[in-house]
Amino acid sequence: MTDSPDPSLRALERFILDHIPLARAMDLRVAACDDATLALEAPLAPNVNDKGCAFGGSLTCLMTLAGWSLVERALQRHGIDCDIYVADSDVRYLAPVWADFRAEARLASGSDWDSFLATLAARGKARVEMACEVREHGGAVVAATLRARFVAKRAPPPAD
Amino acid sequence: MTDSPDPSLRALERFILDHIPLARAMDLRVAACDDATLALEAPLAPNVNDKGCAFGGSLTCLMTLAGWSLVERALQRHGIDCDIYVADSDVRYLAPVWADFRAEARLASGSDWDSFLATLAARGKARVEMACEVREHGGAVVAATLRARFVAKRAPPPAD
Repeated sequence: MTDSPDPSLRALERFILDHIPLARAMDLRVAACDDATLALEAPLAPNVNDKGCAFGGSLTCLMTLAGWSLVERALQRHGIDCDIYVADSDVRYLAPVWADFRAEARLASGSDWDSFLATLAARGKARVEMACEVREHGGAVVAATLRARFVAKRAPPPAD
Repeated sequence: MTDSPDPSLRALERFILDHIPLARAMDLRVAACDDATLALEAPLAPNVNDKGCAFGGSLTCLMTLAGWSLVERALQRHGIDCDIYVADSDVRYLAPVWADFRAEARLASGSDWDSFLATLAARGKARVEMACEVREHGGAVVAATLRARFVAKRAPPPAD
């Protein structure tokens, strides 16, 4: 996965920044995406805490939005219009983050897109689990992890 | 626990808002505190998502800061100066939040302040678990829960 000027990523970034004021406050950027992985980045300054490292809440927000965005992109590729909600998450804060940071999301082990899409087609609602990690920008050390389940619900058809 | 103009709560609020820019962006307010419980509030508008309800990340930030603040207050009451970090958390999003909201933190079952303080005195480091809930302001329905473990580390003595 290389960082890309893909216009559809800019559209996703615009959507997030236009609809989620906290993402604007975090100065979030959509950095990269392929079929399997999506990366978001944020600078340290607007996300700092009282100790001068990144606020745990900012790390969780970025990982949650990375997971949400990967589900959104997968549904878009299949032309499916859904509302997507986070249902639960399990977060581990492993090391302080002293620089700008990047969250990457991928499908969690035990989840697969085919089952998710089949359940969504059959029931109009399905769950899928994402695994996300945060590292300092350009760094190798995993500073935080999040596993989260997302629920997609088919949007109701437009009224006549 | 009644909402109070307690000046020490205003000092805590000032500390959070001065040191955590994301808390300012959320328009966080320290609403109330007694020995057992601490409540933070935030308005919906700066914390909204693409569906018009509260962004899950905002709910998690407010619950995490409520837990952190309760640990901070407990240590302050004992005159202990520590850095406090969130170590891990488990979040359940139960219902959408369509209004201003409030997070309340208390000690989780299985944790107790005496053991936490004794370990901190003996080792200079200790963990304690908080249980937090979010409700719409004035509402009864629990919209999200968080259980989080916090680590307190004694601040090093000032250099000579």
